[in-house]
Amino acid sequence: MTHPAARSLEQRIADTRTRFGRDEDVWVSTGGSKGPYLVPLSFDWDGTHFVISTLLASTTARHLVENGMVRLAFGPTRDVTMVEGTAVVILDEELDAGVGESYARRNAWDPRKEPQRYQWFRITPVRIQAWREANELAGRDLMKQSQWLG
Amino acid sequence: MTHPAARSLEQRIADTRTRFGRDEDVWVSTGGSKGPYLVPLSFDWDGTHFVISTLLASTTARHLVENGMVRLAFGPTRDVTMVEGTAVVILDEELDAGVGESYARRNAWDPRKEPQRYQWFRITPVRIQAWREANELAGRDLMKQSQWLG
Repeated sequence: MTHPAARSLEQRIADTRTRFGRDEDVWVSTGGSKGPYLVPLSFDWDGTHFVISTLLASTTARHLVENGMVRLAFGPTRDVTMVEGTAVVILDEELDAGVGESYARRNAWDPRKEPQRYQWFRITPVRIQAWREANELAGRDLMKQSQWLG
Repeated sequence: MTHPAARSLEQRIADTRTRFGRDEDVWVSTGGSKGPYLVPLSFDWDGTHFVISTLLASTTARHLVENGMVRLAFGPTRDVTMVEGTAVVILDEELDAGVGESYARRNAWDPRKEPQRYQWFRITPVRIQAWREANELAGRDLMKQSQWLG
């Protein structure tokens, strides 16, 4: 199979930022003593961090409260952006100061108005990679130790 | 937002089996002491089990050898099939007896011909769920304890 030429680092970073700004959902992978968990969730992106909201009683929320370790995947399997990150709980005062509103506007849905309790998390990306086909596996690193490489 | 009426159990099982038979990749979520991992991989489906192949030195292979716990996601985020499963290593004699050939034919790629060593796993689904939008969250269970519900 032939594929388009591999994208430059700059192009991949631009494509990735566009994706963070526009995509509808993200795959969220977390883990605990009973094994791995994976679920698609809505999200928001403030240019530096991701914000997600999930049922307080969910496996994802339990894992993130326990260990804060998360791996995110954006896009389809042949045009992916993978993110390794750390998650912290967002406090009510931050939510009220605009974080909740930004999320609600982007997703046309406000978890604060649901009858069940939701837990909010801020995710800081530590490592980011992006590739389409095998010819883009080289050069897939876009961020290391929370620093963009380009 | 209005969505199409929720599919019946029978329809979801049929759609899911079609997906297992035709999809190109699967999201594979695993976990170990250093956190969760997530990566898209090619796969094969024999009607009962999934077969995947990944670099022996990969994080996914290490996690699966360590604990055999895996969660798979098929399809886009608004039309998903989620699988909780257990993975075991596939031995060389099984690979030679047709498992490798079936995988290679489906994916037009044979890991046995790569210069680096690949590890093969058979995944038995234990629980399967499928849903599109929020109106399909009820009735999303298709398999429990490795038994199809329909």
